[in-house]
Amino acid sequence: MEIIKHIDEMQKRQEALRLKGLRLAFVPTMGFLHKGHESLLIEGKKRADDLTLSIFVNPTQFGQNEDLSTYPRNIEGDLAIAERNGVDAVFLPDAKEIYREGSQTFVNLDILPNYLCGLSRPGHFRGVATVVTKLFNIVKPHVAIFGSKDFQQLAIIRQMTKDLNFDIEIVGAPTFREPDGLAMSSRNSYLTAEQRQTALCLIKSLQNAADLVKNGETDPETLIRHATAIIASFPDTAVDYLTVCDPVTLETVSHITGPVLFAMAVKVGVTRLIDNMTIEP
Amino acid sequence: MEIIKHIDEMQKRQEALRLKGLRLAFVPTMGFLHKGHESLLIEGKKRADDLTLSIFVNPTQFGQNEDLSTYPRNIEGDLAIAERNGVDAVFLPDAKEIYREGSQTFVNLDILPNYLCGLSRPGHFRGVATVVTKLFNIVKPHVAIFGSKDFQQLAIIRQMTKDLNFDIEIVGAPTFREPDGLAMSSRNSYLTAEQRQTALCLIKSLQNAADLVKNGETDPETLIRHATAIIASFPDTAVDYLTVCDPVTLETVSHITGPVLFAMAVKVGVTRLIDNMTIEP
Repeated sequence: MEIIKHIDEMQKRQEALRLKGLRLAFVPTMGFLHKGHESLLIEGKKRADDLTLSIFVNPTQFGQNEDLSTYPRNIEGDLAIAERNGVDAVFLPDAKEIYREGSQTFVNLDILPNYLCGLSRPGHFRGVATVVTKLFNIVKPHVAIFGSKDFQQLAIIRQMTKDLNFDIEIVGAPTFREPDGLAMSSRNSYLTAEQRQTALCLIKSLQNAADLVKNGETDPETLIRHATAIIASFPDTAVDYLTVCDPVTLETVSHITGPVLFAMAVKVGVTRLIDNMTIEP
Repeated sequence: MEIIKHIDEMQKRQEALRLKGLRLAFVPTMGFLHKGHESLLIEGKKRADDLTLSIFVNPTQFGQNEDLSTYPRNIEGDLAIAERNGVDAVFLPDAKEIYREGSQTFVNLDILPNYLCGLSRPGHFRGVATVVTKLFNIVKPHVAIFGSKDFQQLAIIRQMTKDLNFDIEIVGAPTFREPDGLAMSSRNSYLTAEQRQTALCLIKSLQNAADLVKNGETDPETLIRHATAIIASFPDTAVDYLTVCDPVTLETVSHITGPVLFAMAVKVGVTRLIDNMTIEP
Protein backbone atom coordinates (compact mmCIF):
# COMPACT_ATOMS: atom_id res chain seq x y z
CA MET A 1 0.00 0.00 0.00
CA GLU A 2 1.44 3.32 -1.08
CA ILE A 3 1.14 6.38 1.17
CA ILE A 4 1.29 9.58 -0.86
CA LYS A 5 1.40 13.09 0.56
CA HIS A 6 1.97 15.23 -2.50
CA ILE A 7 -0.41 16.19 -5.28
CA ASP A 8 1.98 15.80 -8.19
CA GLU A 9 3.07 12.34 -7.04
CA MET A 10 -0.57 11.26 -6.74
CA GLN A 11 -1.43 12.60 -10.20
CA LYS A 12 1.58 10.85 -11.76
CA ARG A 13 0.66 7.52 -10.14
CA GLN A 14 -2.95 7.72 -11.27
CA GLU A 15 -2.12 8.87 -14.79
CA ALA A 16 0.32 5.96 -15.22
CA LEU A 17 -2.35 3.47 -14.09
CA ARG A 18 -4.96 5.01 -16.40
CA LEU A 19 -2.49 4.68 -19.30
CA LYS A 20 -2.25 0.96 -18.52
CA GLY A 21 -6.02 0.74 -19.00
CA LEU A 22 -6.80 0.10 -15.32
CA ARG A 23 -10.08 1.23 -13.79
CA LEU A 24 -9.54 3.42 -10.72
CA ALA A 25 -11.84 3.76 -7.71
CA PHE A 26 -11.71 6.50 -5.09
CA VAL A 27 -13.11 6.83 -1.57
CA PRO A 28 -12.60 10.33 -0.10
CA THR A 29 -12.82 10.56 3.70
CA MET A 30 -11.88 12.74 6.66
CA GLY A 31 -10.34 9.70 8.37
CA PHE A 32 -11.16 8.17 11.78
CA LEU A 33 -12.46 5.28 9.74
CA HIS A 34 -15.32 3.09 10.92
CA LYS A 35 -17.30 0.24 9.41
CA GLY A 36 -19.29 2.69 7.30
CA HIS A 37 -16.07 3.74 5.57
CA GLU A 38 -15.05 0.09 5.28
CA SER A 39 -18.25 -0.63 3.38
CA LEU A 40 -17.27 2.11 0.91
CA LEU A 41 -13.81 0.58 0.48
CA ILE A 42 -15.34 -2.86 -0.14
CA GLU A 43 -17.63 -1.27 -2.76
CA GLY A 44 -14.62 0.42 -4.37
CA LYS A 45 -12.63 -2.82 -4.55
CA LYS A 46 -15.55 -4.50 -6.30
CA ARG A 47 -15.85 -1.81 -8.91
CA ALA A 48 -12.26 -1.20 -10.04
CA ASP A 49 -8.72 -2.53 -10.46
CA ASP A 50 -7.12 -0.05 -8.10
CA LEU A 51 -8.48 1.72 -5.02
CA THR A 52 -7.34 5.04 -3.56
CA LEU A 53 -8.48 6.26 -0.14
CA SER A 54 -7.94 9.89 0.78
CA ILE A 55 -7.77 11.10 4.37
CA PHE A 56 -8.06 14.85 4.67
CA VAL A 57 -9.88 16.84 7.35
CA ASN A 58 -10.92 19.67 5.06
CA PRO A 59 -10.81 23.03 6.86
CA THR A 60 -12.99 24.87 4.31
CA GLN A 61 -16.03 22.76 5.15
CA PHE A 62 -15.97 23.64 8.86
CA GLY A 63 -17.66 26.80 10.15
CA GLN A 64 -16.12 29.23 12.66
CA ASN A 65 -17.79 27.58 15.65
CA GLU A 66 -17.51 24.00 14.46
CA ASP A 67 -15.26 21.14 15.53
CA LEU A 68 -12.32 21.39 13.10
CA SER A 69 -9.66 21.42 15.84
CA THR A 70 -11.26 18.62 17.84
CA TYR A 71 -12.36 16.45 14.89
CA PRO A 72 -11.23 12.92 15.82
CA ARG A 73 -8.06 11.64 14.16
CA ASN A 74 -6.37 8.23 14.19
CA ILE A 75 -4.02 7.87 11.25
CA GLU A 76 -2.40 4.62 12.42
CA GLY A 77 -5.76 2.97 12.93
CA ASP A 78 -6.95 4.29 9.55
CA LEU A 79 -3.91 2.88 7.73
CA ALA A 80 -4.48 -0.54 9.33
CA ILE A 81 -8.11 -0.51 8.18
CA ALA A 82 -7.04 0.60 4.70
CA GLU A 83 -4.45 -2.17 4.47
CA ARG A 84 -6.95 -4.77 5.66
CA ASN A 85 -9.42 -3.68 2.97
CA GLY A 86 -6.96 -3.91 0.10
CA VAL A 87 -6.52 -0.18 -0.48
CA ASP A 88 -3.77 0.35 -3.05
CA ALA A 89 -2.92 3.99 -2.30
CA VAL A 90 -3.67 6.36 0.56
CA PHE A 91 -3.62 10.04 -0.28
CA LEU A 92 -2.67 11.83 2.92
CA PRO A 93 -1.96 15.50 2.21
CA ASP A 94 -1.66 18.27 4.77
CA ALA A 95 -3.79 21.42 4.58
CA LYS A 96 -0.97 23.51 3.06
CA GLU A 97 -0.59 21.01 0.21
CA ILE A 98 -4.30 21.25 -0.64
CA TYR A 99 -4.79 24.98 -0.10
CA ARG A 100 -1.69 26.76 -1.38
CA GLU A 101 -1.08 30.38 -0.44
CA GLY A 102 -3.26 32.69 -2.53
CA SER A 103 -5.78 29.95 -3.30
CA GLN A 104 -9.08 31.68 -4.13
CA THR A 105 -11.17 29.40 -6.38
CA PHE A 106 -14.36 27.82 -5.06
CA VAL A 107 -17.07 25.59 -6.49
CA ASN A 108 -20.57 26.44 -5.38
CA LEU A 109 -24.10 25.26 -6.12
CA ASP A 110 -26.93 27.78 -6.31
CA ILE A 111 -29.81 25.69 -4.97
CA LEU A 112 -29.07 22.35 -3.26
CA PRO A 113 -27.06 23.88 -0.37
CA ASN A 114 -30.10 25.99 0.61
CA TYR A 115 -31.76 23.06 2.37
CA LEU A 116 -31.20 20.73 5.33
CA CYS A 117 -27.66 20.95 6.77
CA GLY A 118 -26.78 23.85 4.47
CA LEU A 119 -29.07 26.14 6.46
CA SER A 120 -27.26 25.69 9.76
CA ARG A 121 -23.82 25.25 8.17
CA PRO A 122 -23.36 28.20 5.77
CA GLY A 123 -20.36 27.67 3.48
CA HIS A 124 -20.12 23.98 4.40
CA PHE A 125 -21.09 22.66 0.97
CA ARG A 126 -18.96 25.23 -0.83
CA GLY A 127 -16.04 23.67 1.05
CA VAL A 128 -17.23 20.15 0.19
CA ALA A 129 -17.81 20.85 -3.53
CA THR A 130 -14.45 22.61 -3.81
CA VAL A 131 -12.38 19.92 -2.10
CA VAL A 132 -14.12 17.12 -4.01
CA THR A 133 -13.44 18.92 -7.30
CA LYS A 134 -9.78 19.20 -6.31
CA LEU A 135 -9.58 15.56 -5.19
CA PHE A 136 -11.22 14.40 -8.43
CA ASN A 137 -8.51 16.25 -10.38
CA ILE A 138 -5.77 14.86 -8.18
CA VAL A 139 -6.94 11.22 -7.97
CA LYS A 140 -8.48 11.04 -11.49
CA PRO A 141 -10.83 8.16 -10.66
CA HIS A 142 -13.27 6.38 -12.96
CA VAL A 143 -15.61 5.79 -10.02
CA ALA A 144 -15.98 7.47 -6.62
CA ILE A 145 -17.96 6.12 -3.67
CA PHE A 146 -19.79 8.20 -1.06
CA GLY A 147 -21.96 7.19 1.89
CA SER A 148 -25.69 7.93 2.07
CA LYS A 149 -25.72 9.14 5.69
CA ASP A 150 -24.48 12.47 4.33
CA PHE A 151 -27.38 12.46 1.91
CA GLN A 152 -27.24 16.13 0.99
CA GLN A 153 -23.51 15.84 0.35
CA LEU A 154 -24.15 12.91 -1.98
CA ALA A 155 -26.91 14.83 -3.81
CA ILE A 156 -24.61 17.83 -4.20
CA ILE A 157 -21.72 15.74 -5.50
CA ARG A 158 -23.97 13.99 -8.00
CA GLN A 159 -25.29 17.36 -9.23
CA MET A 160 -21.83 18.94 -9.34
CA THR A 161 -20.36 15.97 -11.22
CA LYS A 162 -23.10 16.27 -13.83
CA ASP A 163 -22.96 20.08 -14.04
CA LEU A 164 -19.17 20.28 -14.36
CA ASN A 165 -19.07 17.26 -16.72
CA PHE A 166 -16.68 15.18 -14.66
CA ASP A 167 -16.35 11.86 -16.49
CA ILE A 168 -16.69 10.00 -13.17
CA GLU A 169 -19.29 7.52 -11.96
CA ILE A 170 -20.69 8.49 -8.54
CA VAL A 171 -21.84 5.59 -6.37
CA GLY A 172 -23.95 6.17 -3.27
CA ALA A 173 -23.49 3.34 -0.76
CA PRO A 174 -26.17 2.60 1.87
CA THR A 175 -25.80 4.00 5.38
CA PHE A 176 -23.96 1.52 7.57
CA ARG A 177 -25.51 1.10 11.02
CA GLU A 178 -24.60 -0.29 14.44
CA PRO A 179 -26.61 -3.43 15.40
CA ASP A 180 -29.06 -1.20 17.31
CA GLY A 181 -29.58 1.06 14.30
CA LEU A 182 -27.36 4.08 15.05
CA ALA A 183 -25.81 5.35 11.83
CA MET A 184 -22.01 4.98 11.90
CA SER A 185 -20.27 8.34 12.20
CA SER A 186 -16.84 9.51 13.29
CA ARG A 187 -18.66 12.01 15.52
CA ASN A 188 -20.27 9.16 17.52
CA SER A 189 -16.93 9.03 19.33
CA TYR A 190 -17.89 12.30 21.04
CA LEU A 191 -20.83 10.63 22.84
CA THR A 192 -20.83 9.53 26.48
CA ALA A 193 -22.32 6.09 27.26
CA GLU A 194 -25.61 7.73 28.19
CA GLN A 195 -25.67 9.96 25.10
CA ARG A 196 -24.94 6.85 22.99
CA GLN A 197 -28.34 5.49 24.13
CA THR A 198 -30.01 8.86 23.55
CA ALA A 199 -28.61 8.93 20.00
CA LEU A 200 -31.04 6.14 19.12
CA CYS A 201 -33.78 8.80 18.99
CA LEU A 202 -32.80 9.49 15.36
CA ILE A 203 -33.27 5.97 13.98
CA LYS A 204 -36.33 5.40 16.19
CA SER A 205 -38.09 8.47 14.83
CA LEU A 206 -37.13 7.53 11.26
CA GLN A 207 -38.45 3.99 11.67
CA ASN A 208 -41.63 5.33 13.23
CA ALA A 209 -42.13 7.63 10.23
CA ALA A 210 -41.59 4.72 7.83
CA ASP A 211 -44.22 2.71 9.73
CA LEU A 212 -46.70 5.59 9.66
CA VAL A 213 -46.30 5.96 5.89
CA LYS A 214 -46.63 2.19 5.37
CA ASN A 215 -49.91 2.44 7.30
CA GLY A 216 -51.24 5.12 4.98
CA GLU A 217 -50.05 8.42 6.44
CA THR A 218 -49.48 10.97 3.67
CA ASP A 219 -49.01 14.18 5.66
CA PRO A 220 -45.37 15.18 6.26
CA GLU A 221 -46.39 17.39 9.19
CA THR A 222 -47.75 14.34 11.03
CA LEU A 223 -44.44 12.50 10.55
CA ILE A 224 -42.54 15.51 11.83
CA ARG A 225 -44.86 15.91 14.86
CA HIS A 226 -44.36 12.27 15.83
CA ALA A 227 -40.60 12.47 15.34
CA THR A 228 -40.40 15.64 17.40
CA ALA A 229 -42.22 13.90 20.25
CA ILE A 230 -39.95 10.83 20.10
CA ILE A 231 -36.79 12.95 20.12
CA ALA A 232 -38.11 15.14 22.96
CA SER A 233 -38.75 12.01 25.03
CA PHE A 234 -34.96 11.49 25.21
CA PRO A 235 -32.87 13.65 27.58
CA ASP A 236 -30.48 16.37 26.40
CA THR A 237 -31.69 16.48 22.78
CA ALA A 238 -32.37 19.48 20.51
CA VAL A 239 -33.72 19.29 16.98
CA ASP A 240 -31.76 21.25 14.37
CA TYR A 241 -34.12 20.25 11.54
CA LEU A 242 -36.61 17.57 10.54
CA THR A 243 -37.53 17.61 6.85
CA VAL A 244 -39.59 15.50 4.50
CA CYS A 245 -38.32 16.31 1.03
CA ASP A 246 -37.80 15.20 -2.55
CA PRO A 247 -34.74 12.89 -2.68
CA VAL A 248 -33.31 14.65 -5.77
CA THR A 249 -34.20 18.34 -5.47
CA LEU A 250 -34.38 18.32 -1.62
CA GLU A 251 -37.47 20.55 -1.89
CA THR A 252 -40.01 20.15 0.90
CA VAL A 253 -42.87 17.79 0.09
CA SER A 254 -46.41 18.79 1.14
CA HIS A 255 -48.12 15.46 0.43
CA ILE A 256 -46.55 12.01 0.24
CA THR A 257 -47.41 10.20 -2.99
CA GLY A 258 -44.07 8.52 -3.79
CA PRO A 259 -40.62 8.00 -2.29
CA VAL A 260 -39.56 10.86 0.01
CA LEU A 261 -36.48 11.54 2.05
CA PHE A 262 -36.96 12.03 5.77
CA ALA A 263 -33.80 13.81 6.91
CA MET A 264 -32.83 15.15 10.30
CA ALA A 265 -30.09 16.76 12.36
CA VAL A 266 -30.35 16.44 16.14
CA LYS A 267 -28.02 17.66 18.82
CA VAL A 268 -27.29 15.14 21.57
CA GLY A 269 -25.50 17.19 24.19
CA VAL A 270 -23.11 19.30 22.11
CA THR A 271 -22.76 16.64 19.38
CA ARG A 272 -24.70 17.24 16.18
CA LEU A 273 -25.83 13.96 14.57
CA ILE A 274 -27.52 13.49 11.22
CA ASP A 275 -29.50 10.64 9.75
CA ASN A 276 -32.03 10.03 6.99
CA MET A 277 -34.20 7.40 5.41
CA THR A 278 -35.94 7.11 2.06
CA ILE A 279 -39.55 6.27 2.84
CA GLU A 280 -42.11 4.88 0.40
CA PRO A 281 -45.88 4.64 0.69
CA MET B 1 -11.50 16.69 -39.16
CA GLU B 2 -14.19 15.46 -36.82
CA ILE B 3 -17.08 17.71 -35.85
CA ILE B 4 -18.55 16.69 -32.51
CA LYS B 5 -21.68 18.14 -30.94
CA HIS B 6 -22.21 15.92 -27.91
CA ILE B 7 -20.34 15.81 -24.63
CA ASP B 8 -20.21 12.04 -24.23
CA GLU B 9 -18.90 11.56 -27.76
CA MET B 10 -16.17 14.14 -27.16
CA GLN B 11 -15.17 12.52 -23.86
CA LYS B 12 -15.01 9.06 -25.45
CA ARG B 13 -12.83 10.32 -28.30
CA GLN B 14 -10.41 12.10 -25.99
CA GLU B 15 -10.21 9.23 -23.50
CA ALA B 16 -9.40 6.78 -26.31
CA LEU B 17 -6.61 9.04 -27.59
CA ARG B 18 -5.20 9.50 -24.07
CA LEU B 19 -5.17 5.69 -23.67
CA LYS B 20 -3.03 5.50 -26.82
CA GLY B 21 -0.50 7.77 -25.10
CA LEU B 22 -1.16 10.78 -27.34
CA ARG B 23 -0.70 14.31 -26.05
CA LEU B 24 -3.85 16.42 -26.52
CA ALA B 25 -4.03 20.18 -27.07
CA PHE B 26 -7.11 22.34 -26.71
CA VAL B 27 -8.04 25.83 -27.93
CA PRO B 28 -11.39 27.03 -26.56
CA THR B 29 -13.04 29.87 -28.51
CA MET B 30 -16.35 31.62 -29.10
CA GLY B 31 -15.84 31.26 -32.86
CA PHE B 32 -15.73 33.98 -35.56
CA LEU B 33 -12.10 33.02 -35.84
CA HIS B 34 -9.42 35.50 -36.85
CA LYS B 35 -5.64 35.40 -37.12
CA GLY B 36 -5.33 35.70 -33.35
CA HIS B 37 -7.19 32.41 -32.97
CA GLU B 38 -5.09 30.92 -35.79
CA SER B 39 -1.94 31.72 -33.84
CA LEU B 40 -3.39 29.75 -30.91
CA LEU B 41 -4.13 26.78 -33.20
CA ILE B 42 -0.58 26.89 -34.57
CA GLU B 43 0.74 26.92 -31.00
CA GLY B 44 -1.51 23.95 -30.15
CA LYS B 45 -0.31 21.92 -33.16
CA LYS B 46 3.29 22.49 -32.08
CA ARG B 47 2.69 21.28 -28.54
CA ALA B 48 0.66 18.09 -29.00
CA ASP B 49 -0.26 15.11 -31.19
CA ASP B 50 -3.93 16.02 -31.49
CA LEU B 51 -5.69 19.40 -31.46
CA THR B 52 -9.27 20.14 -30.46
CA LEU B 53 -10.90 23.49 -31.11
CA SER B 54 -14.15 24.32 -29.33
CA ILE B 55 -16.60 26.89 -30.64
CA PHE B 56 -19.20 27.90 -28.09
CA VAL B 57 -20.67 31.34 -27.47
CA ASN B 58 -21.07 30.91 -23.73
CA PRO B 59 -24.24 32.62 -22.48
CA THR B 60 -23.20 32.65 -18.79
CA GLN B 61 -20.32 35.03 -19.45
CA PHE B 62 -22.53 37.71 -21.02
CA GLY B 63 -24.31 40.28 -18.86
CA GLN B 64 -27.96 41.35 -19.24
CA ASN B 65 -27.09 44.34 -21.43
CA GLU B 66 -24.26 42.77 -23.37
CA ASP B 67 -24.01 41.50 -26.92
CA LEU B 68 -24.86 37.78 -26.60
CA SER B 69 -27.57 37.83 -29.28
CA THR B 70 -25.53 39.90 -31.73
CA TYR B 71 -22.14 38.29 -31.08
CA PRO B 72 -20.73 37.59 -34.56
CA ARG B 73 -20.96 34.02 -35.83
CA ASN B 74 -19.55 32.33 -38.95
CA ILE B 75 -19.43 28.57 -38.49
CA GLU B 76 -18.56 27.75 -42.10
CA GLY B 77 -15.70 30.21 -42.12
CA ASP B 78 -14.52 28.89 -38.76
CA LEU B 79 -14.50 25.28 -39.96
CA ALA B 80 -12.46 26.26 -43.04
CA ILE B 81 -9.91 28.00 -40.81
CA ALA B 82 -9.83 25.00 -38.48
CA GLU B 83 -9.26 22.60 -41.38
CA ARG B 84 -6.52 24.79 -42.82
CA ASN B 85 -4.73 24.81 -39.46
CA GLY B 86 -4.77 21.05 -39.00
CA VAL B 87 -7.40 20.91 -36.25
CA ASP B 88 -8.27 17.26 -35.56
CA ALA B 89 -11.62 17.75 -33.80
CA VAL B 90 -14.05 20.65 -33.49
CA PHE B 91 -16.31 20.59 -30.44
CA LEU B 92 -19.46 22.44 -31.45
CA PRO B 93 -22.13 22.02 -28.78
CA ASP B 94 -25.31 24.03 -28.44
CA ALA B 95 -26.21 25.87 -25.24
CA LYS B 96 -28.66 23.16 -24.10
CA GLU B 97 -25.93 20.53 -24.35
CA ILE B 98 -23.60 22.55 -22.14
CA TYR B 99 -26.15 23.84 -19.63
CA ARG B 100 -28.64 21.05 -18.95
CA GLU B 101 -31.91 21.85 -17.23
CA GLY B 102 -31.40 22.28 -13.50
CA SER B 103 -27.71 23.08 -13.91
CA GLN B 104 -26.65 25.07 -10.82
CA THR B 105 -22.91 24.61 -10.22
CA PHE B 106 -20.53 27.51 -10.73
CA VAL B 107 -16.81 28.08 -10.32
CA ASN B 108 -15.84 31.42 -8.89
CA LEU B 109 -12.67 33.19 -7.79
CA ASP B 110 -12.72 35.42 -4.74
CA ILE B 111 -10.16 38.06 -5.75
CA LEU B 112 -8.97 38.20 -9.38
CA PRO B 113 -12.42 39.08 -10.83
CA ASN B 114 -12.55 42.20 -8.64
CA TYR B 115 -10.30 44.13 -11.01
CA LEU B 116 -10.25 45.45 -14.59
CA CYS B 117 -13.05 44.02 -16.74
CA GLY B 118 -14.60 42.24 -13.77
CA LEU B 119 -15.72 45.59 -12.35
CA SER B 120 -17.85 46.56 -15.34
CA ARG B 121 -18.84 42.97 -16.19
CA PRO B 122 -20.16 41.42 -12.94
CA GLY B 123 -20.56 37.66 -13.24
CA HIS B 124 -18.51 37.54 -16.45
CA PHE B 125 -15.58 35.64 -14.97
CA ARG B 126 -17.85 33.29 -13.04
CA GLY B 127 -19.23 32.31 -16.46
CA VAL B 128 -15.73 32.00 -17.91
CA ALA B 129 -14.32 29.92 -15.02
CA THR B 130 -17.37 27.64 -15.07
CA VAL B 131 -17.40 26.97 -18.80
CA VAL B 132 -13.62 26.43 -18.92
CA THR B 133 -13.89 23.92 -16.04
CA LYS B 134 -16.61 22.10 -17.97
CA LEU B 135 -14.66 22.18 -21.24
CA PHE B 136 -11.53 20.89 -19.48
CA ASN B 137 -13.56 17.92 -18.20
CA ILE B 138 -15.10 17.33 -21.62
CA VAL B 139 -11.96 17.72 -23.78
CA LYS B 140 -9.47 16.33 -21.21
CA PRO B 141 -6.45 18.10 -22.71
CA HIS B 142 -2.83 17.92 -21.59
CA VAL B 143 -2.30 21.52 -22.72
CA ALA B 144 -4.70 24.41 -23.35
CA ILE B 145 -3.86 27.64 -25.16
CA PHE B 146 -5.36 31.07 -24.45
CA GLY B 147 -4.64 34.49 -25.94
CA SER B 148 -3.11 37.34 -23.96
CA LYS B 149 -5.45 40.07 -25.18
CA ASP B 150 -7.93 38.76 -22.61
CA PHE B 151 -5.22 39.11 -20.00
CA GLN B 152 -7.47 38.94 -16.95
CA GLN B 153 -9.15 35.82 -18.36
CA LEU B 154 -5.75 34.20 -18.79
CA ALA B 155 -4.73 35.16 -15.22
CA ILE B 156 -7.99 33.74 -13.88
CA ILE B 157 -7.65 30.49 -15.81
CA ARG B 158 -4.07 30.05 -14.63
CA GLN B 159 -5.16 30.63 -11.02
CA MET B 160 -8.21 28.38 -11.31
CA THR B 161 -6.18 25.58 -12.92
CA LYS B 162 -3.70 25.73 -10.04
CA ASP B 163 -6.36 26.08 -7.32
CA LEU B 164 -8.57 23.23 -8.59
CA ASN B 165 -5.51 21.05 -9.37
CA PHE B 166 -6.30 20.48 -13.03
CA ASP B 167 -3.39 18.46 -14.44
CA ILE B 168 -3.30 20.72 -17.50
CA GLU B 169 -0.57 23.00 -18.83
CA ILE B 170 -1.89 26.51 -19.54
CA VAL B 171 -0.12 28.39 -22.34
CA GLY B 172 -0.60 32.13 -22.83
CA ALA B 173 0.04 33.12 -26.45
CA PRO B 174 1.00 36.71 -27.36
CA THR B 175 -1.68 39.12 -28.55
CA PHE B 176 -1.93 38.98 -32.34
CA ARG B 177 -2.21 42.41 -33.97
CA GLU B 178 -3.19 43.95 -37.30
CA PRO B 179 -0.25 45.53 -39.19
CA ASP B 180 -1.20 48.92 -37.71
CA GLY B 181 -1.20 47.51 -34.17
CA LEU B 182 -4.91 46.98 -33.45
CA ALA B 183 -5.33 43.84 -31.36
CA MET B 184 -7.29 41.17 -33.26
CA SER B 185 -10.78 40.68 -31.83
CA SER B 186 -14.03 39.23 -33.10
CA ARG B 187 -15.65 42.45 -31.86
CA ASN B 188 -13.58 44.53 -34.33
CA SER B 189 -16.19 43.43 -36.87
CA TYR B 190 -18.64 45.82 -35.17
CA LEU B 191 -16.54 48.86 -36.14
CA THR B 192 -17.31 51.23 -39.01
CA ALA B 193 -14.37 52.30 -41.22
CA GLU B 194 -14.01 55.51 -39.23
CA GLN B 195 -14.23 53.71 -35.87
CA ARG B 196 -11.60 51.26 -37.11
CA GLN B 197 -9.16 54.21 -37.29
CA THR B 198 -10.32 55.50 -33.90
CA ALA B 199 -9.68 52.05 -32.40
CA LEU B 200 -5.95 52.70 -32.80
CA CYS B 201 -6.18 54.94 -29.72
CA LEU B 202 -5.70 51.83 -27.55
CA ILE B 203 -2.38 50.65 -28.99
CA LYS B 204 -1.15 54.25 -29.39
CA SER B 205 -1.71 55.01 -25.72
CA LEU B 206 -0.10 51.70 -24.71
CA GLN B 207 2.96 52.37 -26.86
CA ASN B 208 3.20 55.89 -25.49
CA ALA B 209 3.13 54.49 -21.93
CA ALA B 210 5.88 52.00 -22.81
CA ASP B 211 8.00 54.85 -24.21
CA LEU B 212 7.44 56.96 -21.10
CA VAL B 213 8.54 54.12 -18.82
CA LYS B 214 11.60 53.42 -21.01
CA ASN B 215 12.50 57.09 -20.56
CA GLY B 216 12.38 56.80 -16.79
CA GLU B 217 8.78 57.53 -15.85
CA THR B 218 7.83 55.56 -12.70
CA ASP B 219 4.47 57.12 -11.80
CA PRO B 220 1.41 55.14 -12.99
CA GLU B 221 -0.78 58.25 -12.71
CA THR B 222 1.35 60.01 -15.33
CA LEU B 223 0.93 57.07 -17.74
CA ILE B 224 -2.81 57.12 -17.18
CA ARG B 225 -3.04 60.91 -17.66
CA HIS B 226 -1.19 60.69 -21.00
CA ALA B 227 -3.28 57.73 -22.15
CA THR B 228 -6.50 59.53 -21.21
CA ALA B 229 -5.42 62.52 -23.32
CA ILE B 230 -4.52 60.35 -26.33
CA ILE B 231 -7.83 58.48 -26.19
CA ALA B 232 -9.79 61.73 -25.75
CA SER B 233 -8.11 63.14 -28.88
CA PHE B 234 -10.00 60.53 -30.94
CA PRO B 235 -13.73 61.05 -31.67
CA ASP B 236 -16.51 58.98 -30.11
CA THR B 237 -14.37 57.32 -27.42
CA ALA B 238 -15.10 56.68 -23.74
CA VAL B 239 -12.70 55.12 -21.26
CA ASP B 240 -14.09 52.23 -19.20
CA TYR B 241 -10.86 51.76 -17.26
CA LEU B 242 -7.11 52.37 -17.52
CA THR B 243 -5.05 50.45 -14.96
CA VAL B 244 -1.39 49.92 -14.20
CA CYS B 245 -1.23 46.75 -12.17
CA ASP B 246 0.77 43.72 -11.10
CA PRO B 247 0.68 41.13 -13.93
CA VAL B 248 -0.08 38.24 -11.53
CA THR B 249 -2.27 39.64 -8.74
CA LEU B 250 -3.78 42.46 -10.90
CA GLU B 251 -3.43 44.77 -7.88
CA THR B 252 -2.87 48.42 -8.71
CA VAL B 253 0.78 49.48 -8.67
CA SER B 254 1.67 52.84 -7.07
CA HIS B 255 5.28 53.06 -8.26
CA ILE B 256 6.85 51.28 -11.23
CA THR B 257 9.98 49.35 -10.28
CA GLY B 258 9.59 46.20 -12.40
CA PRO B 259 7.32 44.75 -15.09
CA VAL B 260 3.75 46.06 -14.86
CA LEU B 261 0.62 45.45 -16.87
CA PHE B 262 -1.02 48.45 -18.48
CA ALA B 263 -4.57 47.30 -19.23
CA MET B 264 -7.51 49.20 -20.67
CA ALA B 265 -11.08 48.99 -21.89
CA VAL B 266 -12.30 51.74 -24.19
CA LYS B 267 -15.63 52.17 -25.89
CA VAL B 268 -15.44 53.20 -29.52
CA GLY B 269 -19.01 54.08 -30.37
CA VAL B 270 -20.97 51.28 -28.69
CA THR B 271 -18.17 48.71 -29.12
CA ARG B 272 -16.13 47.95 -26.04
CA LEU B 273 -12.51 47.10 -26.93
CA ILE B 274 -9.78 45.87 -24.59
CA ASP B 275 -6.03 45.77 -24.89
CA ASN B 276 -2.98 45.52 -22.65
CA MET B 277 0.77 45.54 -22.65
CA THR B 278 3.38 44.38 -20.18
CA ILE B 279 5.73 47.31 -19.69
CA GLU B 280 9.21 47.19 -18.19
CA PRO B 281 11.43 50.00 -16.92
